[in-house]
Amino acid sequence: MPIFSSQQLHRVGLAIFECAGVSRKEAEQVMSLLVESNLAGHGSHGVIRIPRYVDEILKGITKPDTKIKIVKETPTTAVVDGNWGLGQVVARQTMNIAIEKAEKNNVGVVATFNCGHIGRMADYALMATFHEMIGYCVVNSRPQVVPFGGTQRMFNQSPICWAIPAGKEPPFVLDISTSVSAGGKIAVAHDKGEKLPPGYIVNKNGNPTLDPEDYYKGGAGLPLGGLVGYKGTGLAMVVDITAGILSGRGAAYLGENRGQGVFQMALKISAFRDLGEFKDEMDNLLRAVRNSKPAPGFKEVLVPGDLELRTRKKRLMDGIDVPQATWDEIVQTAMKVKVDVDKYLD
Amino acid sequence: MPIFSSQQLHRVGLAIFECAGVSRKEAEQVMSLLVESNLAGHGSHGVIRIPRYVDEILKGITKPDTKIKIVKETPTTAVVDGNWGLGQVVARQTMNIAIEKAEKNNVGVVATFNCGHIGRMADYALMATFHEMIGYCVVNSRPQVVPFGGTQRMFNQSPICWAIPAGKEPPFVLDISTSVSAGGKIAVAHDKGEKLPPGYIVNKNGNPTLDPEDYYKGGAGLPLGGLVGYKGTGLAMVVDITAGILSGRGAAYLGENRGQGVFQMALKISAFRDLGEFKDEMDNLLRAVRNSKPAPGFKEVLVPGDLELRTRKKRLMDGIDVPQATWDEIVQTAMKVKVDVDKYLD
Repeated sequence: MPIFSSQQLHRVGLAIFECAGVSRKEAEQVMSLLVESNLAGHGSHGVIRIPRYVDEILKGITKPDTKIKIVKETPTTAVVDGNWGLGQVVARQTMNIAIEKAEKNNVGVVATFNCGHIGRMADYALMATFHEMIGYCVVNSRPQVVPFGGTQRMFNQSPICWAIPAGKEPPFVLDISTSVSAGGKIAVAHDKGEKLPPGYIVNKNGNPTLDPEDYYKGGAGLPLGGLVGYKGTGLAMVVDITAGILSGRGAAYLGENRGQGVFQMALKISAFRDLGEFKDEMDNLLRAVRNSKPAPGFKEVLVPGDLELRTRKKRLMDGIDVPQATWDEIVQTAMKVKVDVDKYLD
Repeated sequence: MPIFSSQQLHRVGLAIFECAGVSRKEAEQVMSLLVESNLAGHGSHGVIRIPRYVDEILKGITKPDTKIKIVKETPTTAVVDGNWGLGQVVARQTMNIAIEKAEKNNVGVVATFNCGHIGRMADYALMATFHEMIGYCVVNSRPQVVPFGGTQRMFNQSPICWAIPAGKEPPFVLDISTSVSAGGKIAVAHDKGEKLPPGYIVNKNGNPTLDPEDYYKGGAGLPLGGLVGYKGTGLAMVVDITAGILSGRGAAYLGENRGQGVFQMALKISAFRDLGEFKDEMDNLLRAVRNSKPAPGFKEVLVPGDLELRTRKKRLMDGIDVPQATWDEIVQTAMKVKVDVDKYLD
């Protein structure tokens, strides 16, 4: 598996996006977030996305350097037409709208439609923490996951993300799909030629399978929860309704070509608690969980965000491994827009 | 197992609470919600709670007929001291505050501390749907669930509830614990002398067990997700932080005698979409999921709330079965406050 530095991947991606017609500014915004995902250990939301993003730009589905439009607005809420801009560019602006509203009115809620793939949600939820706010972000897209007890793809992986600032500790960041596995993780296993753990997906007949190939042949992801998978399905429906229906994007089951619907919220902590007290209690909670006794078979207890920070540190030192199949696709994409990747790997 | 009509249970409970010193008005509020839980099939949050509620009233922990106090307020937010009132009474008032704020400012968020056990959250989230709003409610309390990879009780079952109105269809209602099982469900299995399904709880050493007795002997509940139980733990932490830290109640791990922390939100739909369009799309989504193809081994695909409505219909006709051990405890509690239950069973 080839290994690259974050700078190498950043340079290669920048060149590809610029040659695909994206401005330097927007290319920077997209690439910094893709590389951040790779650094955090979430290759599923990293440079593996470059080929699809470029493909959608070349087909005119995604429109770089367009302007978003607020179509409905109150002091606490907004509905935004993303005008098919690059997801990373749109979702950053819409999160900023939520934060501005929360700055003035303590809560800001923004729902967005006509939006490209926004990538890893943690990036947006975390923006709120820099303003001493709690950040929330959920996304819907095309159907990839069955409901509990069903065989038809009805929901996307319906991710939920919360970011909450602490004091001396790094912020709490939960960024999870409400299916057992994010779609990108299935793609990564596929590219690596690996099997999936049991309970991740079903084949087209609704029967369990470990082969990621089955996912692309009419299979689907399973909702979080196993025996109590109605819980994962319920959470997925909340995501689908708030990100899809409330935004105007439409529910996931309606089909493929509607982009992503996004629902973002910012909540000002000082409207509820003294900020210093809140942060102290956050630090205490995070430390109490980390210091609690591990279960048989576990070395330590982690809190959401720990693994990502640890992986980031390691990958900044040791580089980022990109599966060969993923890299080959990136190189092919580069060739399509006449970029010689070797020029950017020095 | 004895079977009662909802009216019988209501009358018995009313008499018990009134003789324990609760006003008719508050006793009505508590009993109507407890019986609704039994009707919905969630015995875990039904009359099984009467003995503990009465016990806490007699000990002076819960204070019936007190007034709540808003300790911090903005046009969109409030922090409320529940003054140790009956949970059902307090949580109804605080949800109404959230709804009033959302009526004026499209979003209302209320965090409450010093609150008794509020019971089934669906009751409060559903209140928002009567005002064409999305309702949200989460609760923290004493520690009962281990973090993923841990053996120490750190979180409560950390329930999450969303209620979202539809048009011709009944509202979407998701009311789930983020642990595999609600604590009340473990109590019900215990009272019925039944084993639990695999993956629900661990014993005091952190090893898997099916015996609900182990839960009360130092064991704990497991977070939602099995192999990916970090997802359930993450969701539990969000509940713990928003309901516990943001309200001032404190995180669950801090101990037993802090009552419940509650976090409630109401979100006005018409701030985002035309209400009629939103409801049509809700109806379409709910129907599409129900009409989708069942998986091998399933007869039908349900949406959150379906099972509860069906059970309610059946129990209104056939009565509510109460486990003998639960009924015995209720009768003992009645005797304690000098109520002859037989008088109320005609």
